[in-house]
Amino acid sequence: FMGAGSEIEEGSRLEPRFDASGTIPCITVDAETGEVLMVAYMNREALDQTIRTGLATYYSRSRKKLWVKGEESGFVQHVREVRVDCDQDCILIRVSVEGGASCHVGYRSCFYRRLKPGSSSELEFVYPEKVFDPRKVYRPSS
Amino acid sequence: FMGAGSEIEEGSRLEPRFDASGTIPCITVDAETGEVLMVAYMNREALDQTIRTGLATYYSRSRKKLWVKGEESGFVQHVREVRVDCDQDCILIRVSVEGGASCHVGYRSCFYRRLKPGSSSELEFVYPEKVFDPRKVYRPSS
Repeated sequence: FMGAGSEIEEGSRLEPRFDASGTIPCITVDAETGEVLMVAYMNREALDQTIRTGLATYYSRSRKKLWVKGEESGFVQHVREVRVDCDQDCILIRVSVEGGASCHVGYRSCFYRRLKPGSSSELEFVYPEKVFDPRKVYRPSS
Repeated sequence: FMGAGSEIEEGSRLEPRFDASGTIPCITVDAETGEVLMVAYMNREALDQTIRTGLATYYSRSRKKLWVKGEESGFVQHVREVRVDCDQDCILIRVSVEGGASCHVGYRSCFYRRLKPGSSSELEFVYPEKVFDPRKVYRPSS
């Protein structure tokens, strides 16, 4: 049987298993409601900084640098709890979000669309409206 | 500004962006409570089969094959909703779980441990007990 009783799964020590590129996925949920807000990636430094500062800090795989969530938009995520999954290859953090939005498109959550019932390709929007207008929040990248 | 108003982010068509290895991460949450249960991966075939059959089907990157959740344990996941995130590189499904457990270790959720407050490495267990005993549910692999 796969790994039952192993230290990774049953132990009390955080030993995150970063992938070949040195990152681990992180699911970010609302500390109050448990709603999934976003998924991003952390490297060792981002995870350490998140734990040390209490501010959600990710690693941008495209820009190849650390990224303190909200540093530009102001929608900072205060970390209330850090969890890890059974085989320690995924992190979950529970956060309180300043301003109440975590998606750069303007919605509370990045998961603002769902498949229409009965369709295999057509999406419908979940939230009645955006929390903010990204054109007013983000500076032009000129 | 990155991609605001793009078809991927604002459109109504599911266009999942599988990674270089042909997979996409999937967050699985309880349809009733929204609690995160597990994270696994899907390839195109697993996603199509999940949508077509209504039973959560993943792709095992280690065993390199499709995997209908619960096919061995009986803890089948009935899919109530399929969501996608803003840049369509992550799937989220809302499921009802037969038997009430989604982690092979025996807990309701794979995220059964959290960092102890104030510690950067010591974990504590979240749930008072397991839902099932994996030694009684899984057959020996011999």
